[in-house]
Amino acid sequence: MPDNRQWIMVKKPEGLASEEHLELKTRPTDEPGSGEVLIEQLYLSLDPGQNFYMQSSADVGGGTMKVGDVVRAWGVGRVIASKSGRYPVGSYVRDRYGFAGMQDYTILPESSLYPVDPALAPFPAQIGVLGMPGLTAYFGMIDIGRPQAGETAVVSGAAGVVGTTAGQLAQVKGARAVGIAGGPDKCRYMVQEIGFDACVDYRAEDFEEQLAAACPNGIDVFFDNVAGKILDSCLSKMAYRGRIVSCGAIAEYGTVGQWRGLHNYWNVLVGSLRWEGLSIHNYYDRYDEAYAALEGWFREGRLRHREEVADGLENFIPVFHRLFTGANLGKLVLKIRDEAVA
Amino acid sequence: MPDNRQWIMVKKPEGLASEEHLELKTRPTDEPGSGEVLIEQLYLSLDPGQNFYMQSSADVGGGTMKVGDVVRAWGVGRVIASKSGRYPVGSYVRDRYGFAGMQDYTILPESSLYPVDPALAPFPAQIGVLGMPGLTAYFGMIDIGRPQAGETAVVSGAAGVVGTTAGQLAQVKGARAVGIAGGPDKCRYMVQEIGFDACVDYRAEDFEEQLAAACPNGIDVFFDNVAGKILDSCLSKMAYRGRIVSCGAIAEYGTVGQWRGLHNYWNVLVGSLRWEGLSIHNYYDRYDEAYAALEGWFREGRLRHREEVADGLENFIPVFHRLFTGANLGKLVLKIRDEAVA
Repeated sequence: MPDNRQWIMVKKPEGLASEEHLELKTRPTDEPGSGEVLIEQLYLSLDPGQNFYMQSSADVGGGTMKVGDVVRAWGVGRVIASKSGRYPVGSYVRDRYGFAGMQDYTILPESSLYPVDPALAPFPAQIGVLGMPGLTAYFGMIDIGRPQAGETAVVSGAAGVVGTTAGQLAQVKGARAVGIAGGPDKCRYMVQEIGFDACVDYRAEDFEEQLAAACPNGIDVFFDNVAGKILDSCLSKMAYRGRIVSCGAIAEYGTVGQWRGLHNYWNVLVGSLRWEGLSIHNYYDRYDEAYAALEGWFREGRLRHREEVADGLENFIPVFHRLFTGANLGKLVLKIRDEAVA
Repeated sequence: MPDNRQWIMVKKPEGLASEEHLELKTRPTDEPGSGEVLIEQLYLSLDPGQNFYMQSSADVGGGTMKVGDVVRAWGVGRVIASKSGRYPVGSYVRDRYGFAGMQDYTILPESSLYPVDPALAPFPAQIGVLGMPGLTAYFGMIDIGRPQAGETAVVSGAAGVVGTTAGQLAQVKGARAVGIAGGPDKCRYMVQEIGFDACVDYRAEDFEEQLAAACPNGIDVFFDNVAGKILDSCLSKMAYRGRIVSCGAIAEYGTVGQWRGLHNYWNVLVGSLRWEGLSIHNYYDRYDEAYAALEGWFREGRLRHREEVADGLENFIPVFHRLFTGANLGKLVLKIRDEAVA
């Protein structure tokens, strides 16, 4: 069994996890037990939510991390030792629940896995638009947002994979997709490459006016990855009986304790809004439905996507930080090894 | 046909409506048209939402008021002229949609009416626990809040009729009801007369600790009539997958434009909460279901209630203001005339 490098959380972060909270340690690999497989990881997914698992002290929706734990991560890999009838050596798999972990190898029970068809899409997309972020977009937009034909869905943090996928799912349902992203390059990308109907730059001085102009009948569904001022702005523009999906809070991840004040929540009452917090951990029993639906729309070419691949498990920290500076475009993944190795 | 005194909105208020916005004018009464009845009003309901209809400029959920309109109000009365087969002269009726109006007489189409059985309850209760406030509590608690056996439901503005009814509906469903009210007298009333499981005084210095102690497993349903600081406090105490019903915002009715900042909305995301604004105008097609359910529980003695009756249409303004100072206990109604008159 090969040695295994693992990113271990050595101290709980209060804000963004960094060198003082994380350490790369080497440990021997175990043998898989009955019903388990040993996976060599090919690509690991970098997601803002990983910081949430490290930061959070409450055990809500899928488990938080303790000091000494391997950093949670979703990944795709190849089975190199198997005690599972369903996943023989050589199968490609992704993990359902984010316990692949930031490490070279992982042992997982077959109940935690979902098969990967390498012919369907490159591996980075299998943990992006077709993986956990795709599931997040699916349950948030389809189950909570429920866009109807002719409606307008706004997505903040639009240029991330959850955002691009959520907007396209709204379009699949016949709604218009309006993105909110940082800078003219990302906005162009959203419209020209991903195919959003419009995209508004939150850094523009006339952001409020641009957003209002892009949503002449108000916002029917707001899929929010950001919180803070952008949420407050969208709250005031929600159409009567609109829906807000709280999926992330990038603007507040560094905030300890209370978040900055939200003022326009009057519209929840006045506008008969429905506002729900999303955690995919509430949907375990519907993952197969979501995987199948996403793969169907993907085959039809209705889910455009883009990945940015960084190299090397050892580079986890600086690459992870790119998620929070807005430096990346598309789904950020870390390549652990080439498919052909091992 | 008798003369009709009507409270007319002569100027739109920005905060609480007062003498400068309202004028009592006398006009002749009309004849009812086909399918309509002329009603002499016996009791009219005083509700915080009336100020919302006056203040609001957006036409959402049931119509806002224009300068020159009769002040909207729900009421109970007796038919004194009829061109309706369903409601002959002498029938008692209440209006469904709040267009009885602050006036001596009203003409309404039969589709706007619901029959009143005088033997079931005194008239003030027919427009309280069994009227629009009862419907509000019903749709808010049953349809949005969905309390389950063993859960804890917290109600702010608990001593109002919507609050007392909402908490008791949670109890009907097997949940614990915890009130939030102002002052020890109201809190005693909530527990001893209405039968809430606990009631916390928001004016107490240790309000936060008392509320936390009353909800050891967190708040599963929060039915909010107040907004502001009490909402912020409850947000931080919501149990995972809890539900918030925004029914009113007494703490913010005087506020122009943006409301005071809300900080603990992080829990919508982290706690997978569902937060919905309630307007009974979204439930027109389910009113009969609600009336029937409320009357059923009322007959079983499961809906305790209390009314405070003030006298005389001409006293509308000072009596209405009692709603906003916390001076009243129970459902505030205005007696227009004695049942035996006319």
